[in-house]
Amino acid sequence: MNIKDSIRTIPDFPKKGVMFRDLTTLFADPSAFAESVKLIADYCISRDIDYIAGIESRGFIVGSAVAVKLGKGFIPIRKKGKLPGSVISRTYQLEYGEDTIQIHDDVISPGKRILIVDDLLATGGTALASAELIESAGGIVAGLAFIVNLPDLKGAERLKKRSYEIFHICCFEGD
Amino acid sequence: MNIKDSIRTIPDFPKKGVMFRDLTTLFADPSAFAESVKLIADYCISRDIDYIAGIESRGFIVGSAVAVKLGKGFIPIRKKGKLPGSVISRTYQLEYGEDTIQIHDDVISPGKRILIVDDLLATGGTALASAELIESAGGIVAGLAFIVNLPDLKGAERLKKRSYEIFHICCFEGD
Repeated sequence: MNIKDSIRTIPDFPKKGVMFRDLTTLFADPSAFAESVKLIADYCISRDIDYIAGIESRGFIVGSAVAVKLGKGFIPIRKKGKLPGSVISRTYQLEYGEDTIQIHDDVISPGKRILIVDDLLATGGTALASAELIESAGGIVAGLAFIVNLPDLKGAERLKKRSYEIFHICCFEGD
Repeated sequence: MNIKDSIRTIPDFPKKGVMFRDLTTLFADPSAFAESVKLIADYCISRDIDYIAGIESRGFIVGSAVAVKLGKGFIPIRKKGKLPGSVISRTYQLEYGEDTIQIHDDVISPGKRILIVDDLLATGGTALASAELIESAGGIVAGLAFIVNLPDLKGAERLKKRSYEIFHICCFEGD
């Protein structure tokens, strides 16, 4: 069973020229999905993780399964305005414009170790903002895990320059 | 460990007068989250389920964990415009206006049995549209599972009238 083969590529989504790596075909494949979750959970075991944080919304699919597999709590990192109650926000630049992500301000006790999970690492903008958000909330970023890395977009380099540790299961080059 | 006690209530979100049942406190609690996923997975065992479908986006958190626990594939039911490739859509009425949900048109082989999962059942509008969407895609709705049911909003009654089978873990009355 090859995890990479279970991922479908859709050209020109969401815009012309983009080769979209569609992980829904992986999620629908019981073996590929279970194996992906197991590989990320295995990466966590030696890292003394307290919580898994998933980035909205495909990161919820991967992260919550990893959390339950490890018997840990799950923390959603959400887009602006989605979380009720008191939140911490982080705004970051996109190619055009900006975006804001949020986390509850009381969900992380100081010093807790968090693994951030998303389905795919591209330029790393949202991942980096998520790491900074976790730190603003008092947590320690114990690593960032992805099913797919797109190395041409240099997200992993960007995160490593900031001394974050990265795990990914497979790469697609030429993006 | 009481699952219901792990859910926090936030008054006046997203608008005045609404008592918002915030399940993020449940997701962050390893025991309550694991037990919720186990109870839904237990409900599935006798129901001969092929896939778990989760409704965007808190349904992703619950549904994907149930899928991995059972060794099944996970299918996201998404808001309009989020899924790449060819999709089936269903538009349904909200209190004010309407909304559209989508699923890939090739993800369900005819006759496959699907459990639909969301965190909370209120009026049942999105749940009913999700069930109809699964049927449009060729699937059989083998049940709908929620952590929370708000019986005053009559979503369960509405779904049962249409002969769908419902499972929920706990109720909040007075909503």
